[in-house]
Amino acid sequence: MDFSSKLLENAVNEVSQLPGIGKRTALRLVLHLLKQPASQTAHLSQALLQMRNEINYCQHCHNISDTSICEICASPKRNERLICVVEDVRDVMAIENTGQFKGVYHVLGGKISPLEGIGPHNLHINTLVEKVSQGKADELIFALSSTMEGDTTNFYIFKQIEPYGITTSTIARGIAVGDELEYADEVTLGRSIVNRIPFENSLKNNY
Amino acid sequence: MDFSSKLLENAVNEVSQLPGIGKRTALRLVLHLLKQPASQTAHLSQALLQMRNEINYCQHCHNISDTSICEICASPKRNERLICVVEDVRDVMAIENTGQFKGVYHVLGGKISPLEGIGPHNLHINTLVEKVSQGKADELIFALSSTMEGDTTNFYIFKQIEPYGITTSTIARGIAVGDELEYADEVTLGRSIVNRIPFENSLKNNY
Repeated sequence: MDFSSKLLENAVNEVSQLPGIGKRTALRLVLHLLKQPASQTAHLSQALLQMRNEINYCQHCHNISDTSICEICASPKRNERLICVVEDVRDVMAIENTGQFKGVYHVLGGKISPLEGIGPHNLHINTLVEKVSQGKADELIFALSSTMEGDTTNFYIFKQIEPYGITTSTIARGIAVGDELEYADEVTLGRSIVNRIPFENSLKNNY
Repeated sequence: MDFSSKLLENAVNEVSQLPGIGKRTALRLVLHLLKQPASQTAHLSQALLQMRNEINYCQHCHNISDTSICEICASPKRNERLICVVEDVRDVMAIENTGQFKGVYHVLGGKISPLEGIGPHNLHINTLVEKVSQGKADELIFALSSTMEGDTTNFYIFKQIEPYGITTSTIARGIAVGDELEYADEVTLGRSIVNRIPFENSLKNNY
């Protein structure tokens, strides 16, 4: 693209560094900002800068938090011995939205991925193993995505905590509530049959 | 969405004000910035702020420019009496990319759109009529999009400059080069037959 202004070109280049945003989309966003009052751009820049420079992470679970211990870890209503292992803050938000989980989280910050150069030492695995080795956990629930990287990460952590003999589980994979069987993929349908649950248990679920 | 941090929530809210960016996408972008070095966020904020506060517009054609007269208007190689009327800087970039136009531009800054509250006085129409009335133009080429708003804007300008009797034209609408006739919409195909050109003329086009 041939820009008529260096200022415009510079802004478009910076915006198009964001994932999933190409030059054309970046130009559209930047031209939108030019049509809006300058205060909108000021607020946006300020919010991004402030977030990046002042953000904190919970010392217990590594989730993004404005306080040194996050609300979930600090709550007396949560069972801190039941730990759900997740990839990032989006997973915490998704599970919290269900209102079904009364334990605490441990945010790894990613998954083991040799292709992207992410090894176990780039993730918050040591502090998790520490909690288990100090007898601070009864059960770990693995809630990583069921991809090669997710499975690898689960297995790596499992091997580290195996000696301490605590309960481990993974979230159930199966047909989504309300979905038709005929449209489900084979792997999911297969797993949902192998990992079937007693019918009485299914009655306890609230829709 | 329930955020664990006000800083995060604030950043997501600001980003999701951009057109076509919802809360989920905004969260993904913001989390990406958190994983990158703080310098990237600093560069991004700086580039947006600087662009918004320091951007200039060409005094002749109203295109975005770092100088008071843009490169195109200042160039002795361009015919300043042949004026192409466009909506915004993206159209200028698109036409410049073709390398086929040797005149200058007039950037309106939008189209007349009563629904969005944009009237003739919100656009740079007066300065265009002025150029024509002062005898500074031989031909106007209308290159607005062929929508209701584009056609209205063309017609409004045409009525204003009609008394001065200069040549006016619109860019050709028709089947795109390389496209199959059977997939073209009826309106476009119809127009391309009505506005057919002498075969000898088509031979002059360079592919």
